[in-house]
This record gives sequence, C-alpha cells and structure tokens, in this order.
Amino acid sequence: MTSDNKDKSEEGQSKNALKKAQKAAEKAAKKAEYKAQKGQTDEGGAEGSEEDCSKGLYGDLAMIRSEEERPVTHIAVKDLGRPIANQTIIVRARLHTSRGKGKQAFFVLRSQAYTVQCVVAVGEKVSKQMIKFICNITKESIVDVEGKVMNTDQKVESCSVQDVEIHVSKVFVVSSALPRLPLQIEDAMRREDDLEGLNIKVNQDTRLDNRVLDLRTPANQAIFRLEAGVCQLFRETLRAKGFIEIMCPKLISAASEGGANVFGLKYFEKEAFLAQSPQLYKQMAIASDFGKVFTIGPVFRAENSNTHRHLTEFVGLDLELAFTHHYHEAVKVIGNMFTEIFRGLRDRYASEVAIVGHQFPAEPFKFLDPPLMLEYCEGVAMLREAGVEMDETEDLSTPNEKLLGRLVRAKYDTDFYILDKYPLAVRPFYTMPDPHDPTWSNSYDMFMRGEEILSGAQRIHDADFLCERAKVHAIPLDTIQSYIDAFKYGCPPHAGGGIGLERVTMLYLGLDNIRKTSMFPRDPKRITP
Amino acid sequence: MTSDNKDKSEEGQSKNALKKAQKAAEKAAKKAEYKAQKGQTDEGGAEGSEEDCSKGLYGDLAMIRSEEERPVTHIAVKDLGRPIANQTIIVRARLHTSRGKGKQAFFVLRSQAYTVQCVVAVGEKVSKQMIKFICNITKESIVDVEGKVMNTDQKVESCSVQDVEIHVSKVFVVSSALPRLPLQIEDAMRREDDLEGLNIKVNQDTRLDNRVLDLRTPANQAIFRLEAGVCQLFRETLRAKGFIEIMCPKLISAASEGGANVFGLKYFEKEAFLAQSPQLYKQMAIASDFGKVFTIGPVFRAENSNTHRHLTEFVGLDLELAFTHHYHEAVKVIGNMFTEIFRGLRDRYASEVAIVGHQFPAEPFKFLDPPLMLEYCEGVAMLREAGVEMDETEDLSTPNEKLLGRLVRAKYDTDFYILDKYPLAVRPFYTMPDPHDPTWSNSYDMFMRGEEILSGAQRIHDADFLCERAKVHAIPLDTIQSYIDAFKYGCPPHAGGGIGLERVTMLYLGLDNIRKTSMFPRDPKRITP
Repeated sequence: MTSDNKDKSEEGQSKNALKKAQKAAEKAAKKAEYKAQKGQTDEGGAEGSEEDCSKGLYGDLAMIRSEEERPVTHIAVKDLGRPIANQTIIVRARLHTSRGKGKQAFFVLRSQAYTVQCVVAVGEKVSKQMIKFICNITKESIVDVEGKVMNTDQKVESCSVQDVEIHVSKVFVVSSALPRLPLQIEDAMRREDDLEGLNIKVNQDTRLDNRVLDLRTPANQAIFRLEAGVCQLFRETLRAKGFIEIMCPKLISAASEGGANVFGLKYFEKEAFLAQSPQLYKQMAIASDFGKVFTIGPVFRAENSNTHRHLTEFVGLDLELAFTHHYHEAVKVIGNMFTEIFRGLRDRYASEVAIVGHQFPAEPFKFLDPPLMLEYCEGVAMLREAGVEMDETEDLSTPNEKLLGRLVRAKYDTDFYILDKYPLAVRPFYTMPDPHDPTWSNSYDMFMRGEEILSGAQRIHDADFLCERAKVHAIPLDTIQSYIDAFKYGCPPHAGGGIGLERVTMLYLGLDNIRKTSMFPRDPKRITP
Repeated sequence: MTSDNKDKSEEGQSKNALKKAQKAAEKAAKKAEYKAQKGQTDEGGAEGSEEDCSKGLYGDLAMIRSEEERPVTHIAVKDLGRPIANQTIIVRARLHTSRGKGKQAFFVLRSQAYTVQCVVAVGEKVSKQMIKFICNITKESIVDVEGKVMNTDQKVESCSVQDVEIHVSKVFVVSSALPRLPLQIEDAMRREDDLEGLNIKVNQDTRLDNRVLDLRTPANQAIFRLEAGVCQLFRETLRAKGFIEIMCPKLISAASEGGANVFGLKYFEKEAFLAQSPQLYKQMAIASDFGKVFTIGPVFRAENSNTHRHLTEFVGLDLELAFTHHYHEAVKVIGNMFTEIFRGLRDRYASEVAIVGHQFPAEPFKFLDPPLMLEYCEGVAMLREAGVEMDETEDLSTPNEKLLGRLVRAKYDTDFYILDKYPLAVRPFYTMPDPHDPTWSNSYDMFMRGEEILSGAQRIHDADFLCERAKVHAIPLDTIQSYIDAFKYGCPPHAGGGIGLERVTMLYLGLDNIRKTSMFPRDPKRITP
C-alpha cells in the first residue's frame, strides 16, 4: 500500500520495462522532438531563474502516453487513515481546493466521494517557487502527490478523511483543468437545504450541460453506484430463482400498441421503429420454453412529456415468467424480488445512501416483508374515503396515485406496495381479463413513494383470444402478426412486468427529478452530451 | 417434489383460494357464459357417446385465466430419475412426439433441453377414447401429464431422461399447437453432420422466420443459457475488480466517427442518431471519476454487410478504466477477464457446451493463462513467413486474420490471443499514438479462433491533442465538441475496449453464423420477428 517511491527516474523500471529500454533509447530522439513540438515542460522548477531547492520535486508531467511499464504504488484516498500514519505514500487525485498562507499552502485532494487535506510549507526541500506552483494549480486538475501521512490533532471536519493529513514532499500535475470551470464542484455538492448557498445554486441545465463535472460530486458518485446496485440486485435475485437473462432487439418492424409515441427511422430500404418495451420479445422467449427470463436495456418513448419523471430513453428492467395455475405465483416472485432489492440497498449501500442524503435529505425508504398487496377497488375506496370523487373503474391520475401513496403509508407504514386487479378498460389489449368478472383484469402496478415503478399483468397466451382482444382495441392485426403467431404453437400461461430503473433509484433515494438518476438523461429538449 | 395429486377438483384448494370461493361462486354464472361463447370444452371425455372409464382423466383444459390459486405440485422433466421411482407425479411439458400402437400409446415429453418417455395402455382406468385423444394431441402442445415414475429395463436412448419413464394416468392439454408446424423440432435439432437428415435440413431463414419454434431445440436452449453466462461472467469478473456498471444513452445528437454507417432519426424537432458504440460515454464516465466502468447494451451499425459475422444490432460488452503509468495495466485486466470468462464457461457451462456440440460438433476452445500477447509486427512477420505478401503497417484483411489465428494456434496452442500495437493509420482518431514511434499506436485487438472479438486502445485524454488528431482525420470539430469538452477539466489516462457478445458466444462454441447466437437477429434484410 505504501512506497517511498523516491526514484521516479528511468532507473525505477520493472523487468518488463527494462527489456524495452534499448528499443526506447533508439527512439529517444523522436520523442524529444515530439515533446518540443508540443511545448511540454519537463518535471520541476522551470519557472524562475532563482536557485530552487525543490527542483525535480514538482512540475507538470508530460502527457502520459505509456512511456514505460512501472509498478503501480499509488494508494486510494479512501484508504488513507491512522493505520498508515508516518508512512510516505503517493496518491493520484483531483485538486479540490487550495489556498496559500504565507510560506504554507493547504489543499484538499478529492477522489470519487473522498477528500483529504494536504499541507506543504517552505523548508529544506520545499522552495517558495514550489509553493507558488502548487497555489497556481487549477482546481479539478489531476495531480500525483507524494508525502507523509500524519495524524491530525483535531478532526478535519471539511474532509471525509478526518484523522490524518498529508505532509507533501512532491506534486506533479498529471492532467490540468482549464482555469475557468463552468460550475464549481463545491457549489454543485452543496446541501439542498443550505440557505446560505441559495444564491450560488447550480441549476439543473448547467449541471447537465457540464455533466462530466457535475458527476464528480460525492452525491452523484454515490447515486450511480447505487443505481448499478439496483441492476445487480435485480439480476442476483432473479438468477437465484432460475431466471435467465435474454437480449431483446431495439430495432423492430412495427410500432407496437398502435404506433403512438414511437420513434421511427429508415432501415435500409424499409421503415423501422425503436422498441417501446421488450415485452413482445420476452413473451416470445416464454413461448420458446425459456420459462423465466429477464432483460435489462434501453426503452424509447417519443413522448413530449416534460415532467420530473419522464425520459425519452430510459433503462427497463423487464421480467417475464411462466406460471402453473395463477398469475399471483408471478406477482409473489416480483414482490419478493423488490423486497430483496430494498434489503440489499439498505444493507450493502448504506454508505451511498448516507452520502446522497447529505446533499439531498430524505426520509428513509420503508418496506414490508412480504410486501403489501391491495386490490384496485380497495385503493379507490381509500381515495374516496379521503374525499376524492372518482368512479370505481376510472384510471388513477398522477395526483391520486401520489395521494394513495400517502394514505397507504399512513395506514400500513410502507413506501412500497402492489395494486392488483386493475380495470380491464385501462390496460393494453394483451392483458388477461379477470376470469370471473370482465370489468377487471389480471394486472397490477407497483408503487414506490406513491409513484408507479412497475406495470405488469398476466398476458393472453392464446392466439385466438389475443386477436379478439386486439380487435376490441382496434389494433390492426397485420401490425402484430408475428406477435400473435408466437402463440399458435403452444404457450404456457405467463405474467411479467417492466420496471423503470431511474425511477426506482430516484424514489428509493427520495430524489425529486429523474434527471438526477440518469447519467446522461434524454428528454424532448435534451439529447446532449 | 411429488404428489399423488388425485384431487384436481375444487376441494383441493389452498386456504387463499377458499377465501375466494364465495366470490367465485357468485360469479360462476358469468364464467359459464364466457366459456360457452368461447366454445371451450370442459375436462375429459366429451368425445364419444360410448361409456368412457377415463372420464375426467383427460381432455382440453380451459384457457388458464388464473381461476384459483392452488399449490404448485408439478415437477420438472430434468428432475425425473430413479430417486423418485414408483412415485406419482405431475409434469407440464410439450408433446414432442407420439405414436399409437394397438391399445397403447407412446409419447415423449420435452421441456427445455430435456425429454422423457411416457407410456399409456388401455386398462381399468384408461379407455380407448383416452388413447385416441392422446394420439390426436398436436405436437408442441403443452400438456399436464400425471403418472407413475417407473424404472426402465434398458436405457431410453432417444431421451435425455434414460432410466425412468412415466406410466400415464391423466393427460390434459394446457395449450394446443396448430396441427401444421412451419418446421419440425426433430428436424431443427438434427445433428449438422447427419447426412441422412440432409434432405430435411431446416434452412436458416425458415428457422429465423419461426424463431419461437426454432429456439425450442436443445441446442438453442443451451446457446442462450451460455450467452447469458458470458454476460454474467463479464460482470462478475469486473465487479470483483472494482468496476461499476453504467448505462449509456443510445440516442445521440451527432454521428460519431464521421457519420458513416449510422442510423438517423427524427427526434421531435431535431435530428438524432443511434449510437454505434458507448465509447464516448464510457470515457466521460472516466473523466467524471468513476475510475473503472463497464456497460452492456445494444450497438447499432447501419452497415450493409451480409456476412456470417455482421449484425446491424448487436450487444456490446464495453469496459473502460483509468490506469496509472501504462495502458498495459488495462490490457492485462482485459486479458485476464477473458481467461476468467473462458474458465467459467468451461467449468460452469459444460452441460450447455455438450448439448450444443451434440448438434454442432466443434473442437473445444483452447486458451492460455495468462493469455498470449503478440505485437502487430510479430503477427505480420508470421503471415509473411507463411507466404502472405503484405506491408508491415497494412491493416489485416479478414482472411489474413483467420490465417493468423491458425498460425498462432499451431505455434502456441491457443484459440485466444491479443495483438498489440496496431499501426496508427488504421485506428480511429482518438487512439493514443505510440510515444516512441508515431507509426504505431497504443491499441490492440483480441481474437477468438482467428476472428476479432474486441477492439481497444489507450484513448487520448488531452483535449488539445485530441483536436489535433481529429483534424488529421478530417473530422469536423463541431460534431465532437461535447466529447472534446469532456477532457478540458482534467482526465486521467485511460484505456478500454468493446466486445461483441454474439461473436464471443459463436466463436467459443465454434458455430458458423452469428445469427445462431442472436436471439432475434437483425441484419440488412431482416428486422422480424
């Protein structure tokens, strides 16, 4: 983990590098020529004419172009602490902030969500020129810093590493940032309810326009680690239950579900569309005997919705499974999968949740095991009791969904629940009607903090009945022929659902906008970067 | 695992179902009405007027619409064997083949890659009508079969379950297949070198047109299980090394790399394109401090190539990582990752490899640990020695790649190797030139059985140098502005690569066409199903 690393010269080579040394020597002339063209500075003290006792201990490194293979002795900022006190180490990190103070300089290094304080003072090996050089390094530049890990007298409250600091002996700039940043990371990471910071709040568009900077905040580092965790937990849980992962095409020949909100494109001499869901393909996988399948991939919606929770491209976590007698077999699998995901996020991503919560305070996410399941009519009854005027078979408006979420939380103490048996009329044509009463259907939505994150159903697995239902919905059969054909050669009863990844992450963390949980969000007005 | 399951009547209900019984009763009228409309037959013996001792023991089930929740007592075909001999069980599977023989019927049930023989003979509880009914069930129909597991005197060579068969007492059709199948599964699963079967060989287009049937063959069941395994091993290996999974947008505002072979589309009032690679986004994630990232997703190429190894949409396994001194740090991570994938496939997917090999015989895939790495110029020297006339810095043609694969295998006994240090001129603009000799570059391809499956490089992480190189390649800077901007605020040196999933699966298994390893392949002529 540590190294005195005094020798950064060509003598410090690995065996592998030595073998190449001769070759390199032959080409040294070329290299020197190239550097001259680029106007690159060599290491250390080329600044002033005054005698410099720090010569060779600071400076701009030439662009790293894989000159030599060398052992990597750097250590990570997050691994700094008392156990390695008094050791000389080298770290590569960003210059987060710096300030000069007479013959001293203080600066903070940041790497991912972690920060450490560094101190350097004029002395035997540290010149004024070196201090000046350090104070002039632009914020966000990447530097290699060598120094001694020293215990601090009192906690460094402003850094994540609080009980040690680095007493710096060498500083080299690996990659420098432009001096004018389009946004300040310190502002971008400011706590949402920090009123003093209000006037320097970084607005969403500035953040997204400069996403490469914005993503460096500790909260964003944590959000996308947690989002990766959602995918991992989804797969882990389903694989343990015998599901297999499939890949579904995004280029399709017909606009499913009637052609609304679909992106079209020219496909050689033909027309094609971007899939709005992998559902037809998941179902074909079921008709092909894969039994239980899941798929993770982009989903495209050409919907001109500019809301906090709509994207034109998002990531779908989709699953589908054959069941034996009743679609509740599938609903239980899905419900329990969510419990596993929530448990995994709570237990394995506690640090990420805390880091995000530091910038965006939120109530911890509550869930029950097993999850709460209500029937649609029960949900409507709760709303009516709360004064909402609505018909029993009317679709839930977004405000009513939110209200119901609050009512459910008050009554059952959970932020996650399943609403089962939706009115048939508000569901797609391939939804299996309830066997006892055609007012209802074998379909369900699942909610987090009052917002829908999964929609699913038992699908019709009989080709004739599917045609019949498509006709009722006025869907031209020729546009869904290959879908219907999939059910002509025997298909088991099956059910499934599709989950919006960004919504799950947003709602688990209690964030207010889906653009915060999409690394490079796409909406009707944004398609860059 | 087993059940005598004699009672399929409504008395065999679970508690949960009992609660709903009252409700159900109220709606029984509606249900009966619906069935009448659909012309559905109830269970058992509605066929003839003759007295039928099997009444209630066979028939067409009504479409399963989740009438009642019941315990699932079915067992899987693959779990049938001597340990449960003499037990009465129920299985749900497809009728693979059947034949009547006097007062007996023999049929084979198939579920995924597994088959079992069933026998039924006229007797006290089995009527001639029941035998006739069974013989008339169309192939590929899904049936529930109840019967006794019996040891066989000799191995049933034609089935995967060889030491037991089922002596059938009940047969119900769950979902029937049309009598005329567009392809016969027995033909579709025939061994490639079975000369007797040549005249009934199912051609590729027939297979793909009827993919839902074609995917039911044991080889296809195994291919896509193994392909899921490739993804799983890719993620597992990288996660263990500290990589995080990211999601990259597929809708982009500018055609990368000059706009050739890119699908364009209308995006509200603007123009958009489908990403040909997630590379720019992976790199932005590196510039955003994620350190080591991977992503799995669709990749689009509007290339009119109708070859055995090109698709217009395929799945990319992409990774990118910051390194400290030399891009070989990254190459080693990628090379060792492949070793882990190959080892995992060999050890965990031996049964799938065997099943595929049964239909498509191939040499087992060979690899070395650590993997072989050659320099490009060494590869060219080998080709020249074998009589190929080519310049040292000329790109490798496909036939030369294949030949080199054979030469490498003969010399080093490996089907996987890395070719490092490609000529700069044949690589994209963002490739880092070799620091010692601008003829070469810090880039590499990786090969399986002589075909490229990964292309990668150290990327230029300096905005000025990137502009310079883009100009050399005549790429208009305004089309890649947000890409260039990503490197203006400090970026660590980094390298990575992109892998074609379907190629890895195809070449690991020694298959001859990439359409065999894409569940729903897309090429210039095919966009359905």
